[in-house]
Amino acid sequence: MAEPLRIALAGLGTVGAGVIRLLEANRTLITSRAGRPIAIVAVSARDRSKNRGIDLSTFAWEDDMTAMAARPDVDVVVELVGGSDGPALTLARNAIREGKALVTANKAMIAHHGLALALAAETAGLPLKFEAAVAGGIPVLKGLREGAAANVIERIYGILNGTCNYILSTMEDTGRDFGDVLKEAQQLGYAEADPTFDVEGIDAAHKLSILAAIACGAKLDFASVDTSGISRLCAADIAQADSLGYVIRLIGMAETERDESGARRLFQRVQPYLVPRDHPLAHVDGATNAVVAEGNYCGRLLFQGAGAGDGPTASAVVADLIDVARGEIGAPFSVPVGELEALEPAESGHRMGRRYLRFTVADRPGVLAELTAAMRDAGVSIESLIQKGRPEEGGEVLVAIVTHPGPESQVTEALRLLDGSPSLTAPPLVMQLLAK
Amino acid sequence: MAEPLRIALAGLGTVGAGVIRLLEANRTLITSRAGRPIAIVAVSARDRSKNRGIDLSTFAWEDDMTAMAARPDVDVVVELVGGSDGPALTLARNAIREGKALVTANKAMIAHHGLALALAAETAGLPLKFEAAVAGGIPVLKGLREGAAANVIERIYGILNGTCNYILSTMEDTGRDFGDVLKEAQQLGYAEADPTFDVEGIDAAHKLSILAAIACGAKLDFASVDTSGISRLCAADIAQADSLGYVIRLIGMAETERDESGARRLFQRVQPYLVPRDHPLAHVDGATNAVVAEGNYCGRLLFQGAGAGDGPTASAVVADLIDVARGEIGAPFSVPVGELEALEPAESGHRMGRRYLRFTVADRPGVLAELTAAMRDAGVSIESLIQKGRPEEGGEVLVAIVTHPGPESQVTEALRLLDGSPSLTAPPLVMQLLAK
Repeated sequence: MAEPLRIALAGLGTVGAGVIRLLEANRTLITSRAGRPIAIVAVSARDRSKNRGIDLSTFAWEDDMTAMAARPDVDVVVELVGGSDGPALTLARNAIREGKALVTANKAMIAHHGLALALAAETAGLPLKFEAAVAGGIPVLKGLREGAAANVIERIYGILNGTCNYILSTMEDTGRDFGDVLKEAQQLGYAEADPTFDVEGIDAAHKLSILAAIACGAKLDFASVDTSGISRLCAADIAQADSLGYVIRLIGMAETERDESGARRLFQRVQPYLVPRDHPLAHVDGATNAVVAEGNYCGRLLFQGAGAGDGPTASAVVADLIDVARGEIGAPFSVPVGELEALEPAESGHRMGRRYLRFTVADRPGVLAELTAAMRDAGVSIESLIQKGRPEEGGEVLVAIVTHPGPESQVTEALRLLDGSPSLTAPPLVMQLLAK
Repeated sequence: MAEPLRIALAGLGTVGAGVIRLLEANRTLITSRAGRPIAIVAVSARDRSKNRGIDLSTFAWEDDMTAMAARPDVDVVVELVGGSDGPALTLARNAIREGKALVTANKAMIAHHGLALALAAETAGLPLKFEAAVAGGIPVLKGLREGAAANVIERIYGILNGTCNYILSTMEDTGRDFGDVLKEAQQLGYAEADPTFDVEGIDAAHKLSILAAIACGAKLDFASVDTSGISRLCAADIAQADSLGYVIRLIGMAETERDESGARRLFQRVQPYLVPRDHPLAHVDGATNAVVAEGNYCGRLLFQGAGAGDGPTASAVVADLIDVARGEIGAPFSVPVGELEALEPAESGHRMGRRYLRFTVADRPGVLAELTAAMRDAGVSIESLIQKGRPEEGGEVLVAIVTHPGPESQVTEALRLLDGSPSLTAPPLVMQLLAK
């Protein structure tokens, strides 16, 4: 039997505990597939005394997790601590410096520091793997990096945040409002006490920026993701979308395009979209994630599965460990960091599409005329308009407009014309309609 | 720049031509991802003079394709000839004997000879890859072998034949009968002149047996796949399923179970299933393929995309070539052939489930009583029964029965009781209802 691959595991939350359980439960199979045993040697976490329901007695304990990187009896550091900086980043840097392979589930760290870490790992000839950072148990990074490796990926998009998808599909099923469903999700443990990262789209933007770099061959650029979340959606939006044949999903989307000078530019956006009911993403419910990649030879690929949870995330971490055990190094972003293009963000003004605009307006004469005049003056062509009174809301009225296809700049201009109007009692909400 | 990976390509049909075009179109990207150029050195096909719309002048031509394996200027043989035996198999064996890597899209050859070829390749330390043999452009073998490598796969099933799925979804959309839609599919090039391999489920069974070996860690056993096709389905079955909330899809399914002695057994079946409309596979239309893998840690994974066509199949072939260029060897069936278990086929009699039974009966008194008595005597509990006359068919009547959950053996017994009855004007048709 070949020498075991020796692991130091930092972070013993649900995912860390899941990794320990999985390595134990599927040990024989994992050894077969890896070609050698995968053995945890040392573990570390903030609180040693906490009862995690797993036996840690056979592992060395390190109080200082960043010191694990220096252990001579370790081949791979598995970082499951979380946080874009702090101890996680220190540990990751130390691990590579000490010549260890690095496996992490930390999307925030990869979104912020992935290129620097990958460059360090590549220079040292070490594996750096982060399948668990995007879409939980779905092997989508491997699918893009290797499975679809022959393709120019023309567009990649998907449902990347299980919390938002749970909230949206529950709103859809129950007709309840956002705040109400969020509260329940928090009680059920599907949403954090501070849900900002999830519901404002930041978590999805972390994942999208990682996907975009791999799929588009572009230097990772989290800061340029145009990000909005789902916290402003109300039950009426869901109902309106439903009556038009759509469901609402938080979609992360990336693609490259050429500007007038011929330079390649990167478009990255996280936003709620209206998804037509006959699109595969419309059937992705609950905490499920799904990613669509459109390649110039493979056509449209869909990867779907559990986007979070200890089991699925542990599955992705251990898949990375099996790759490391098999000597699979590979470029973390599919091509060497030096070959990733530094792309300017794409403008969105010329992007053609249909859009859903929702206005909350005062219930008085002339408001509709004001809205429609702004649309006309900006050149926005209206396909349908629905006005619904909400008498219980003190005379507020919702007006939902679906536009004909047109450039985004016209919608932006219409909203500029309406900016500051006393008729609007809340900022307008804009969503894209996803093409089939 | 590292040395190129040198290819001999046998078979210049649509897929072979697609591989040549893809390697040319995405050359820069492929070189980046592979870490070195991938260069075709020699090609071979039956007819040298045929105009394929591609420039072959820069490649050496071999009249005898099996001789390509012996060329000293070649690292990899790509076999795109097809057929389970004959020149394809000779070429494959020669390639491995001559120390070449082998990449193939040939499902029939892998289903029949995959274990022997894999053993030879493993013994010689050579890569043998066949991603394109299953589900066209979908990287599902890599997804199982590597992406879900940490999991015991408890069940794998999916839509594996694009021709059948095209026919079924067209029958669904148009209400037309099987023979009529098949004829159209043949005219459109979606079905072969001799459609037997596709419509009788044999092609799907080839693919299922490959998936099952990888997913279940079992020795490949094509001969034991319980196979039936779609040629006996009629428009009334589709309509009946629809009224019950189902669509009909040809599903390949494999899972392992324990028999009374505790031995692991392999269940493999290709059959039309009634798929509930809220199941992800119910939305897979046209020539699309989709595979669901249920792992004990990752949960349910879905891989979906184009199951055939020159572009998607070429995408899978070139992904294999990129892996070979990167030095990725790996066990073709995820674990070494010697570690695959030789599993006896599972009995199906004890399998619990709901079923759809369709009888074509003579339109005369007492027939329904005879059918329902047989059900009662066999212990089959009827959930619903629909009788529909087809006056234009000369007094024939269709009776569709949906059963309550029960063991398959009861249904088999009911059919045995009815066997030879003059009331039945055609053999009964049985379909499983897929659980959600």
